[in-house]
Amino acid sequence: MANKSCIIRLSMYRNALMRLKALNFVKVFSDNLADAARVTAVQVRKDFSLFGISGKRRGGYLVDELIEQISAILGKDKVQKFIVIGIGNIGRALLNYPGFKKNEIELVAGFDIDAGKHNKEAKVPILPLEELGGFVEKNDIKFGVISVPDFSAQEVLEVMLRAGIRGILNFAPIYLKEPPDCVVHNLNLETELENIIYFTNFASQAGSK
Amino acid sequence: MANKSCIIRLSMYRNALMRLKALNFVKVFSDNLADAARVTAVQVRKDFSLFGISGKRRGGYLVDELIEQISAILGKDKVQKFIVIGIGNIGRALLNYPGFKKNEIELVAGFDIDAGKHNKEAKVPILPLEELGGFVEKNDIKFGVISVPDFSAQEVLEVMLRAGIRGILNFAPIYLKEPPDCVVHNLNLETELENIIYFTNFASQAGSK
Repeated sequence: MANKSCIIRLSMYRNALMRLKALNFVKVFSDNLADAARVTAVQVRKDFSLFGISGKRRGGYLVDELIEQISAILGKDKVQKFIVIGIGNIGRALLNYPGFKKNEIELVAGFDIDAGKHNKEAKVPILPLEELGGFVEKNDIKFGVISVPDFSAQEVLEVMLRAGIRGILNFAPIYLKEPPDCVVHNLNLETELENIIYFTNFASQAGSK
Repeated sequence: MANKSCIIRLSMYRNALMRLKALNFVKVFSDNLADAARVTAVQVRKDFSLFGISGKRRGGYLVDELIEQISAILGKDKVQKFIVIGIGNIGRALLNYPGFKKNEIELVAGFDIDAGKHNKEAKVPILPLEELGGFVEKNDIKFGVISVPDFSAQEVLEVMLRAGIRGILNFAPIYLKEPPDCVVHNLNLETELENIIYFTNFASQAGSK
């Protein structure tokens, strides 16, 4: 199994390839992709060989072919549908974020307990939390985002799992444990900013020594 | 120097401690913090000893004291000011996000090139990008968030560095390189969702074998 850093690099290679394709590139070399992802060319070839992707000797890779192969690995050969639970600041920003669609990711519905936020007619409907189970089953949804306050996150996670959701990105500022056979990644925005503060202070102390 | 995972754990311990304090806890044991951060008690004590934090033998740690010590390490003994460049969906969500303030993080201003978004009178003012340099100098800002489209991210990074910003969280979906003596963390939301897709598909394949 590939580790998380490898998958992140594959994403980067794919992003770079999409840009190169837009510039009419037909061929690409591991050095090009290495530059784009700030790794070595050896790392690029290692990542590719892990997934059985091989280039032509001295000929590099064909951009279209490579995009197709990486897309298949990342599950991007078809549109992947997500739901978002908790339509506050972050939840709403995600629903309106234009970058997902072009990456074959579609946020198909939002859910909230606040009736004031419900809107079944919107392009991306905002529905009552009680309708989550039915919606997930009817639309065969496997993925979701939690963007509720910390105190309701665990309960929302359980509702999602019961409905059949198997992969979750959690923005609530509380660490949610990964149940068996499921994937829960915790993305805490406070922690991300705290990291910036700590490492910047450290870098400037090291620099002034 | 502590690594990123260690700092993330310190953040988790601190979050847990704040919750325990709210429940009137006076003492806490490494096992309690281990549960909260889903690590072992040995890991907790190892992290603490790295920063010279020691408990009383069999007596555990005093909650207030521990919060103070971890806060100082994380630079949270005073309010840390950030600016946000790019007031689109994500930028606006961050400015309105209530979780930062209680963690001693203050987003003090937003910047955008779109005059339609400027608002000097707002509680958190939205200013023209040209005013960034003056604002950063006057208010002694070291930290910033980039939430502009990919094609302007590199240029915005350079403007920020020239102004004296030293720590940056980048949400633009392009990998920005870290200049010397500075900290740039890249947080790509597409990549986070792609990770969920990949690992969920992998987990379900593994589960069905």
